[in-house]
Amino acid sequence: MSGAEVTTDTHEQWLSDDDMEVARSRLPIVYVDAVPVRVDAAGNVTQVGMLLRVAPDGSISRMVVSGRILFGERVRDALVRHCEKDLGPMALPRIPASPSPFTVVEYFPDPDRSGYYDPRQHAVSLAYVVPVDGDCQPTQQALDLAWFSPAEAVSPTVRSQMTSGHDRLIRLALAHVDQLP
Amino acid sequence: MSGAEVTTDTHEQWLSDDDMEVARSRLPIVYVDAVPVRVDAAGNVTQVGMLLRVAPDGSISRMVVSGRILFGERVRDALVRHCEKDLGPMALPRIPASPSPFTVVEYFPDPDRSGYYDPRQHAVSLAYVVPVDGDCQPTQQALDLAWFSPAEAVSPTVRSQMTSGHDRLIRLALAHVDQLP
Amino acid sequence: MSGAEVTTDTHEQWLSDDDMEVARSRLPIVYVDAVPVRVDAAGNVTQVGMLLRVAPDGSISRMVVSGRILFGERVRDALVRHCEKDLGPMALPRIPASPSPFTVVEYFPDPDRSGYYDPRQHAVSLAYVVPVDGDCQPTQQALDLAWFSPAEAVSPTVRSQMTSGHDRLIRLALAHVDQLP
Amino acid sequence: MSGAEVTTDTHEQWLSDDDMEVARSRLPIVYVDAVPVRVDAAGNVTQVGMLLRVAPDGSISRMVVSGRILFGERVRDALVRHCEKDLGPMALPRIPASPSPFTVVEYFPDPDRSGYYDPRQHAVSLAYVVPVDGDCQPTQQALDLAWFSPAEAVSPTVRSQMTSGHDRLIRLALAHVDQLP
Repeated sequence: MSGAEVTTDTHEQWLSDDDMEVARSRLPIVYVDAVPVRVDAAGNVTQVGMLLRVAPDGSISRMVVSGRILFGERVRDALVRHCEKDLGPMALPRIPASPSPFTVVEYFPDPDRSGYYDPRQHAVSLAYVVPVDGDCQPTQQALDLAWFSPAEAVSPTVRSQMTSGHDRLIRLALAHVDQLP
Repeated sequence: MSGAEVTTDTHEQWLSDDDMEVARSRLPIVYVDAVPVRVDAAGNVTQVGMLLRVAPDGSISRMVVSGRILFGERVRDALVRHCEKDLGPMALPRIPASPSPFTVVEYFPDPDRSGYYDPRQHAVSLAYVVPVDGDCQPTQQALDLAWFSPAEAVSPTVRSQMTSGHDRLIRLALAHVDQLP
Repeated sequence: MSGAEVTTDTHEQWLSDDDMEVARSRLPIVYVDAVPVRVDAAGNVTQVGMLLRVAPDGSISRMVVSGRILFGERVRDALVRHCEKDLGPMALPRIPASPSPFTVVEYFPDPDRSGYYDPRQHAVSLAYVVPVDGDCQPTQQALDLAWFSPAEAVSPTVRSQMTSGHDRLIRLALAHVDQLP
Repeated sequence: MSGAEVTTDTHEQWLSDDDMEVARSRLPIVYVDAVPVRVDAAGNVTQVGMLLRVAPDGSISRMVVSGRILFGERVRDALVRHCEKDLGPMALPRIPASPSPFTVVEYFPDPDRSGYYDPRQHAVSLAYVVPVDGDCQPTQQALDLAWFSPAEAVSPTVRSQMTSGHDRLIRLALAHVDQLP
């Protein structure tokens, strides 16, 4: 979940940082989460991509692509925008044809409410598995982007590097594509 | 999409009507839509329920169950709350076990943006088919609740009574359960 | 996956045991798998049901409801029939309204082909999560029917009692309903 | 649904035409259906591809890609094989990462049983929407491959050229990707 989303100029009405903070304390915020994957010619997921970045809770964590849907923005345009922002301009994300997310992630300021945690807000996030072709380069706040096999992605080592419930989100994504070990 | 959601006392921080109006002009609002259906013992959808009520555009329209997710509220609790509110206390909605909606409805103040229309706001709505047992009675603002066979539900007569794109939502729901004529 | 399916009289053309064995060595056989669950009023899965029975590989294993689709039989009628057969006549399975399975299980005679194993055949099985109300009693070949919490269902103890890949199928089902620990 | 599937040499045990006819009269046969689509960079379906070929009922019809899963064959490998066979070697089908079909098509020799018709057999078909890049050329028995916009694909003209229930399958596919007019 990234912060600096204020620069898009294709939409008109934005919230100041202060207003956003007030809204975040009163309303659920709409997000998209994208689990970037590499697939082979038969559609098998062979690798899962994870960003290394500062999580909402301040820890340096492995995370999926995640960000807010802006006022007036279509869900799939938000997916494109956040994938480009986090994976770089040479990445070719294959946005799913169906708008139905494989799961809905409910982030709460209370870490025990759903297992998904965001100290800043209550966010309702539509989660998609997004096959990515092309060359991926971490940009913006991301320190690194690494690719893991399904087995590595659910290993204790990698899980210990994840917070906010993103380790569970990865397991759900792998289950959805029948690659959960 | 109903208005008077301010009375729930299990959550703490609410928006005044004024604040809500400001938020609605700046942020996408999270909704749930529920298409109430009657099913037989093998799970076949035999009837679709539609409310007659004042739509956000002011017209009297046939509509599905629809309403906002509150701050701190789980998606499935919002589904229960809105089904109870619109179908009455004797209705027994069977909330789906999976959080994945069959489609995501994007309502915009511009009726041409997505085909789903809400003059008040940009709403991102998670849409579910909800089998309902028990006795359903329209409550609150609803003038009527009627049940239609799948063929009737997509007929020109019933479609002409729907606005906001809810006629299309009904067709998507029927396609999802393989009952689109 | 049960054997004695020869008694249904609503369909006409059956295979002798010999013919079935020949067909099983040449053609993929169509199956349904049902993961029986208990849900609360908000649709949360609280328990997973597992049968104790003789698996196709001869072991005594914890298994989901599983069986063949007969010639001329609708998928959802096969689901009803196998749930009744395995859970008893007092069980009230809530067959999903959508025909789309949450995953497709590919059983092969080679245990390494997909991780799902059936020494008798190549079976392609449509897998559903089926909420069950009413009183469940194991019948026919089942020795026992036990209910487990999601955490118990994926615990090493219960996993060690499962073969054929059914432990993985349970994890996929729990991921689908957002209850994978 | 194509006939000449006997040439694949990667699998071992095949049925003679006679044996296949017997099996088809006694057992449901497992199929895959693929609805080929063109998508834009945001995943929106812009066109639907339809083959012109001799349908199982003998008519010359517009049809989706459809064919049998062979003994020992993975579902996704069958999808690749049938897409290659029907769309040509220069087509680049993007096989979905999830094995879950958007619907299950039940073809019966009785045209009134489910609305999906195949005079030769009872087939249970896993149906997928498959985005296709690259150059598509009809091959084998197909007389033509044409691309239609979503509006054209559900128009009376195109619908009148379809049999076997494939017109309904197209509507379900378009509903799934939120492009049903």
